[in-house]
Amino acid sequence: MKIPSRTDRLRRFLNPGTIAVVGASDRPGSLGLRTMQNLANFKGQVFPVSKRLKTLQGLRCYGTLADLPVSPDCVILAVPAAAVQEEVAAAAKKNAAGCIVFAAGYEEVGTEEGRAAQSRLVEAAQAAGMRLLGPNTTGFADFQSGARAGFAEFPGGLAGRDAGVAVVSQSGALGLALAQASLHGVALSHVMTCGNSADIDVADLVEYLASSVEAAAIALTFEGVSDPKKLVAAVDAAIQAGKGVSVCRIGRSATGAAAARWHTATEPHSGFDWDQRLARAGAVLVDQPEHLIETANFLAKTAGIERASNGGVAILSSSGGSAIHAADCLSAVGLDLAGYSESTRSHLVAALPAFGSPRNPCDLTAQATSDPDMMTTAAGILLQDPSVKALLLPWGKAWDSGRFGQLSDLAKHHAKPVCLIWMSQWLEGPGAAEAEAAPHLCVFRSAMSCATALAQLRR
Amino acid sequence: MKIPSRTDRLRRFLNPGTIAVVGASDRPGSLGLRTMQNLANFKGQVFPVSKRLKTLQGLRCYGTLADLPVSPDCVILAVPAAAVQEEVAAAAKKNAAGCIVFAAGYEEVGTEEGRAAQSRLVEAAQAAGMRLLGPNTTGFADFQSGARAGFAEFPGGLAGRDAGVAVVSQSGALGLALAQASLHGVALSHVMTCGNSADIDVADLVEYLASSVEAAAIALTFEGVSDPKKLVAAVDAAIQAGKGVSVCRIGRSATGAAAARWHTATEPHSGFDWDQRLARAGAVLVDQPEHLIETANFLAKTAGIERASNGGVAILSSSGGSAIHAADCLSAVGLDLAGYSESTRSHLVAALPAFGSPRNPCDLTAQATSDPDMMTTAAGILLQDPSVKALLLPWGKAWDSGRFGQLSDLAKHHAKPVCLIWMSQWLEGPGAAEAEAAPHLCVFRSAMSCATALAQLRR
Repeated sequence: MKIPSRTDRLRRFLNPGTIAVVGASDRPGSLGLRTMQNLANFKGQVFPVSKRLKTLQGLRCYGTLADLPVSPDCVILAVPAAAVQEEVAAAAKKNAAGCIVFAAGYEEVGTEEGRAAQSRLVEAAQAAGMRLLGPNTTGFADFQSGARAGFAEFPGGLAGRDAGVAVVSQSGALGLALAQASLHGVALSHVMTCGNSADIDVADLVEYLASSVEAAAIALTFEGVSDPKKLVAAVDAAIQAGKGVSVCRIGRSATGAAAARWHTATEPHSGFDWDQRLARAGAVLVDQPEHLIETANFLAKTAGIERASNGGVAILSSSGGSAIHAADCLSAVGLDLAGYSESTRSHLVAALPAFGSPRNPCDLTAQATSDPDMMTTAAGILLQDPSVKALLLPWGKAWDSGRFGQLSDLAKHHAKPVCLIWMSQWLEGPGAAEAEAAPHLCVFRSAMSCATALAQLRR
Repeated sequence: MKIPSRTDRLRRFLNPGTIAVVGASDRPGSLGLRTMQNLANFKGQVFPVSKRLKTLQGLRCYGTLADLPVSPDCVILAVPAAAVQEEVAAAAKKNAAGCIVFAAGYEEVGTEEGRAAQSRLVEAAQAAGMRLLGPNTTGFADFQSGARAGFAEFPGGLAGRDAGVAVVSQSGALGLALAQASLHGVALSHVMTCGNSADIDVADLVEYLASSVEAAAIALTFEGVSDPKKLVAAVDAAIQAGKGVSVCRIGRSATGAAAARWHTATEPHSGFDWDQRLARAGAVLVDQPEHLIETANFLAKTAGIERASNGGVAILSSSGGSAIHAADCLSAVGLDLAGYSESTRSHLVAALPAFGSPRNPCDLTAQATSDPDMMTTAAGILLQDPSVKALLLPWGKAWDSGRFGQLSDLAKHHAKPVCLIWMSQWLEGPGAAEAEAAPHLCVFRSAMSCATALAQLRR
């Protein structure tokens, strides 16, 4: 019999058919109950483990892991730190593929005891070939299978699409805050967090996602990993597999790095040239977490579209001021505005209102809000020009033009990125959800974030 | 009789008791109807001017401006460009304080005819001592008096406060997009746009607002002015009058500047050292429009609080990753983390959960979301430490803690800025409106934007 590799174990663990919940509970607010509730729509089998309960949520409970009729793919330890070591040993004995440790109080507290306790967990798991997520983690979610293997709310889902953004975050709370983008319509395939990364780290998670059909792009944020080159290789592999990857590294400053050590016992490897290495692998680097998801979503929505071709960008807007700002942003990152052919220009003149500007930026004036087809028509004229390689649509007031689907179709038809820049400070106002729902229309809340992403893809 | 100065005229025009609407109409979609609807809650008197209608919205109509029983403070010309010159002359003859010209097709089209037509408007107005807003403008709104003197939707209002942010934007559509911040709870006192700025420009508007009781802070975005020093002086005057001013200049690049010339016939004065001059006057400079309102709102909500004192910043969060990022941002702008006294530290230890970190950043862990008082208690402990000059609260998932009012009270009591960094990508999720409603709690959607504002105030 072939001995399963660590990678095989990881795949079985992260895409489980069977999940055991140790510490399953009916006590309101308990991690055990929250975890069980998260698994209500899991397509596989759930095995609650409880000494006290006979059944929970209609499922038979087992007194101990040893009593389970199967070797579980994923064991969730919703138990206090004092009980963790024993349960890890029990999971290993049951030949589980991997287990999740929520409990904190390990290496991140900075004491010798904490460090030693974490080492013992890892040794017990590794001796049995079992993978371990955590400790000090919120777990992971695969929205396709409904495996919300954690105690936190895991907002997400593919919103009717075949694929979406996979969020990978070392920090649990930050990952969940970012994943809440799904609550205004961003399609997510996975949310994966790894806390102290005693065994599984963000590199493992990215490597795993590289072969996931549902992950069209990966949004990665992390503080550090034990092996920087392994992470760069994982990012490289994901990009080779056709997944766009956006990365926001935190803990870059000395004070931030110190805080990372207390947070997840992470060494940020400040000496490693993260930016250069990740950029060379083809990742899109993002300075601020608030731009991470929109950038990954842009990569997901333009998967299969030529994003890296050199050449000009066209700006089309009903807000002249927003268009000027977009031109400033493109200039700041070294991207050129497209020059139009004579034919494009004359078609534009015919489509524009009296005082619109058939230049680049192309200003439709406020007339476009009384005639929503004007935007679609002008976008079509611009996208057919070979010198236009991408189209930016700085969007003024929050407004559902009813034409987002058409703009998305144009992006697909011309195989060029079309990015709507949501300038309104009514952040989820009318039209925001509708624009997000258009499969090939990319929505950014920052023109500079959009320009930065476009520029990096042309390296 | 004292001849009213240009400034007197401007004040009468921008804070009108009487408004005449030339081109008042009942035709759906017309500028005349939209303007009349905007004035429905005006506390002063409205005089519709229409050759066709006898009454409109219960008001008597007048056939011409000459027929009006008063000299109007503000005349709105909701008429086609062809009729504008004649009506400007009629308004001047009626001794109006000022008039608003919506029509486009003047200097911004770049033709000799356009330039000449604009000059004729200005000459006619100035010969009579009348002020002119526009052409090519959406108008202005004073939410206190209900003078929504324009055709665009003017979202805004003081949300029950005494004062709020005044938005000043040369670009109409951009100004309105920014002003939509009011639709998720930001208190606005005014929105003022000036388009081609043939007479009244952003400098005049800022100067006017310097003496407005309702404007606690000014959010200014512009492409250019004819007299840069006049704008710097106006900003300086506003700041001397206790108004914080945030500024986002657009049209900074060569391509952006060219677009500004087509948009509002504006010369960006790229040779003028805008950043240095505005910073020296005390303005907070903002690179991206999406940070303009949150920065102005921070200035409004901390009016009367010592914002500029040197010394450390404390970070308190239930999301360790978000706290690390905030530390990175403070470091990037050269701000120090506060060191705590021994007494502060021991009080913190008592208030924190088992694995929280009594350091700076102070990590409450996810426990803080099951015990919302923990955040308030820890915030109080930190704010009483003399070495803490400002407190940042990176906020993880969208969540209404029910304690925003208490955090706001702490900010007021200790007279120190308290800034909540909304890290969730559920941008208007639970808690967002509640946090915004707290009068002294500042909400940013970007830790870097917050750090940048804090750092600039310490120049």
